[in-house]
Amino acid sequence: MDLEKRLMTPGPTPLPPQVIEALGKQVLHHRTDEYADVLARLNDGLKYVFATQYPVVTLTASGTGGMEAAVVNCFNPGDRVLLVSAGVFGDRYYDICRCMGLDVKKLEVPWGKGVGAQEVLSHLAGDEKGVIVTHNETSTAARSDIESIGKALKGTGMFFIVDAVSSLGGMEVRPEEWGIDIVVTSSQKALMCPPGLTFLSVSQRAMEAARQSRSYRHYWDLCKAVDFLSKNPPQHPFTPAVNLVVASLTAVSLIKEEGLENVWRRHRRMGQMAREGIKAMGLELFADEKYASDTLTAVKVPEGVSAKDIIRRMEQDFGIIIAGGNGKLKGSIIRIAHMGYITERDVLDALGALEKTLSGLGWPVKEGRAGAAAKAIMDTGGTEK
Amino acid sequence: MDLEKRLMTPGPTPLPPQVIEALGKQVLHHRTDEYADVLARLNDGLKYVFATQYPVVTLTASGTGGMEAAVVNCFNPGDRVLLVSAGVFGDRYYDICRCMGLDVKKLEVPWGKGVGAQEVLSHLAGDEKGVIVTHNETSTAARSDIESIGKALKGTGMFFIVDAVSSLGGMEVRPEEWGIDIVVTSSQKALMCPPGLTFLSVSQRAMEAARQSRSYRHYWDLCKAVDFLSKNPPQHPFTPAVNLVVASLTAVSLIKEEGLENVWRRHRRMGQMAREGIKAMGLELFADEKYASDTLTAVKVPEGVSAKDIIRRMEQDFGIIIAGGNGKLKGSIIRIAHMGYITERDVLDALGALEKTLSGLGWPVKEGRAGAAAKAIMDTGGTEK
Repeated sequence: MDLEKRLMTPGPTPLPPQVIEALGKQVLHHRTDEYADVLARLNDGLKYVFATQYPVVTLTASGTGGMEAAVVNCFNPGDRVLLVSAGVFGDRYYDICRCMGLDVKKLEVPWGKGVGAQEVLSHLAGDEKGVIVTHNETSTAARSDIESIGKALKGTGMFFIVDAVSSLGGMEVRPEEWGIDIVVTSSQKALMCPPGLTFLSVSQRAMEAARQSRSYRHYWDLCKAVDFLSKNPPQHPFTPAVNLVVASLTAVSLIKEEGLENVWRRHRRMGQMAREGIKAMGLELFADEKYASDTLTAVKVPEGVSAKDIIRRMEQDFGIIIAGGNGKLKGSIIRIAHMGYITERDVLDALGALEKTLSGLGWPVKEGRAGAAAKAIMDTGGTEK
Repeated sequence: MDLEKRLMTPGPTPLPPQVIEALGKQVLHHRTDEYADVLARLNDGLKYVFATQYPVVTLTASGTGGMEAAVVNCFNPGDRVLLVSAGVFGDRYYDICRCMGLDVKKLEVPWGKGVGAQEVLSHLAGDEKGVIVTHNETSTAARSDIESIGKALKGTGMFFIVDAVSSLGGMEVRPEEWGIDIVVTSSQKALMCPPGLTFLSVSQRAMEAARQSRSYRHYWDLCKAVDFLSKNPPQHPFTPAVNLVVASLTAVSLIKEEGLENVWRRHRRMGQMAREGIKAMGLELFADEKYASDTLTAVKVPEGVSAKDIIRRMEQDFGIIIAGGNGKLKGSIIRIAHMGYITERDVLDALGALEKTLSGLGWPVKEGRAGAAAKAIMDTGGTEK
C-alpha cells in the first residue's frame, strides 16, 4: 500500500511508524532473556490498556481464535449460554458457540441497536451458565452497555464474556469493576498492532472454571497460557509470533504515553465529530445514536448513489480507505473507522473527502458543513461520556 | 538481537534481509486486490515448497495449532489412532490427540531413533482410523521414514498425518506420492518466515473427512479455510496476520529462486558436514546416524563440560546461538540447527566456534579437525540422499 494512503477501515488499522520499525527486525529467539523482557513489559502494558489486574494472555491467532478460547475454557459442551447478537460479529460468536457444542440461546437485537442490563436480564431463563455480549458491533457501529450488564450479573454465578475486539484500547472497559470474566480483543484494531495476536484478560473465576473444564482444547487452553505467563521469566506454551509481540509492545507503549483515559477521550471525540459531520451533510447514521460507537461510524448510503463508487472514489481521489457493509448490509452502508492511530484531523479529512465524493457522484451536498460541525466538537473537546 | 548474531536454533531461524524488509511495512487491508494478489502468489508458492497439488492453507497460529487442526478435521472424539513418538514433539502431538478426545495409542520410539513402515505396520491393530508421525523430531535430531510409512498405508483407508514442522522446506516431502493426507508445518523453521503462521496441505480424502467430522471446531475448520482459499480472489475466513503473510511470500520466493531440490541438497549437505565435523572433533552424535536429520544435529555434551556453558560461550564469544536439550535431554545435549537461511559457511563457523569453546572449557580437542572433515563434504558436494 502507498504509505500516503490512510486506512480508515475497522481493522486492520494503520500502524504507527514506530510500530512498523519494531516489526521489521530480525526475529528474537523466544527462550532468551531479551524476549522474556519484551514479554514481561508487554504483559504489564496489556494490563494497563485492559485497565485490569487480571492476567492478560497473548495468543498467536486472530480475534476469532480468542473468542473460541474464551468459551472453551469457561464452558463445557452442552452448557447453556445466552448470546447477544446485534450484527455479523455477534452472529459469528453464535456460530463459535454452536461449533463448540454449547446449548446457545440467541438474543437477536435489531441491527444498529445495542442492549443493556434490562434486556439481558429479561431474556435469562435462570439456568444459563454464562452470557456473551459483543461490546462494539463492528458491522453496525452500535455498542452495548456492558457495564450495566456486567454489574447486574455480578453474584449470579454466571460467567460474563465480552468480545471487545473493536473497542478495547479505544473505549472504556473495566474487567473487575464491570464483572467481566473474559475480555477478548485482537491486535489490529484500536491497539494499533499488526493482525495476528489475540489478547484475553482472565478472571480468577474463569481460571478456576478452566481448570475444571472437560471441553476439548489444547491450543486454546488458558490455564496453560496463564501458567506459562506466571513463570519467571514469563513464557508462552508454544512458539509465539515474536515479531508481532515486539511490535505490540511498542504500540502499547504509545497508548501508555498518551494516557489511556486520553485515548478513550480522543476516540469519543472522533466519534462525535464523525456523527455530527455526517448529519450536517444531510446523511443518515445507521446506528441509533443512543448506542453509538466511539471507534467507527456507519452511514446509510443515500439513494441513487452506489456504496462501491463512494469507497472507490474515496480511495482513488483522496487516498482514504473506508469499508462497506458486511453481510446483509453490503451495499447499503459505508463504515468509517476512527480507531487506533487515527486523529481528529483524519476525521475532518475523511468528512471533507466524503462531501466531495458525494458531490462528484451527483448527490446534492453543501460542501463545508460537515467539517464545520465536526470542527465545533473538536474545538470544544467533545462531551464527557 | 544484535544483527551480527546468528540464530542456529531449530526455530525461529534467521530471517533473510529481504524477508525483514517485507515484514516492516504498513499493514495491507486483507480484503483488497493487493492483498488477494499476495495471497494467490503465496498459495502457488506454498504448493511449490510442499511439492504438492493439494491446497495448502495458511492459518494464523503456531505450528502446534496446525497440529491440532489436522486431527480435529480428520478424526472425531473416540476415534482410534496410532501416534508415533520419538521425542518431545511426538509427545506434544500425543497430548493434542488426548486433549481432542481421541483414543490414541502411543508407539514409543527410543529417543534418537526413528521408524519406518515395518515398525508402524507391526503396531497397528487394524481398527485405527489414522497414523500420526513426526517427520523430523526437533528434540532429538532424528527423522522417521515417512515415505515408506505413507506408501505402506496407501489403500488401507487410514489417514496419514505428518508433523513436518522442522523439516518442510529443508527435507524432501511429497504429499501425493507418499500418501500423506495432511502435512503440517510452521513458518519459522526451514521456511525462513517469522513465527506466527502454520501451513497445512490437505488431501481430498482429508477434506471429505473434514466435511463429515462431528468434532468441535471453528477456528481450525479446514473446510472453511480451503473454501475461502478457493474463492476468486482467494481469502481467509478470519483476519490473517497480514504482515507475516506478506513476509512469507518473499521467503517462499527465495526458495523458488534457489530451487526446491537445491534447497533440499543444501540441507542434506549441511547435515553431513555437521555430523562429520562433530565426529572429527571427538564428540558423539545423539541420534542414530541411520535416522539423521538434515535440518539439525544433536550432540552429546562430553563429560566434565556443562551444556549451559557451551551455549553461553558460543553466543558471547562467537555470536552463534545454539540450543540445549528439551525435556529429559536438558543438560545432556546441545542442538545445532542448520535450516532455512543458513549456509555451509555458517556450519563451518559453528564447528570452529564449538572447537574453540570446548578448548576454552578445558575439554581436549584438536582444533581444525572438524572444519577439515566438514570442508571435505562441502567440496565434494556431499552424497545424494
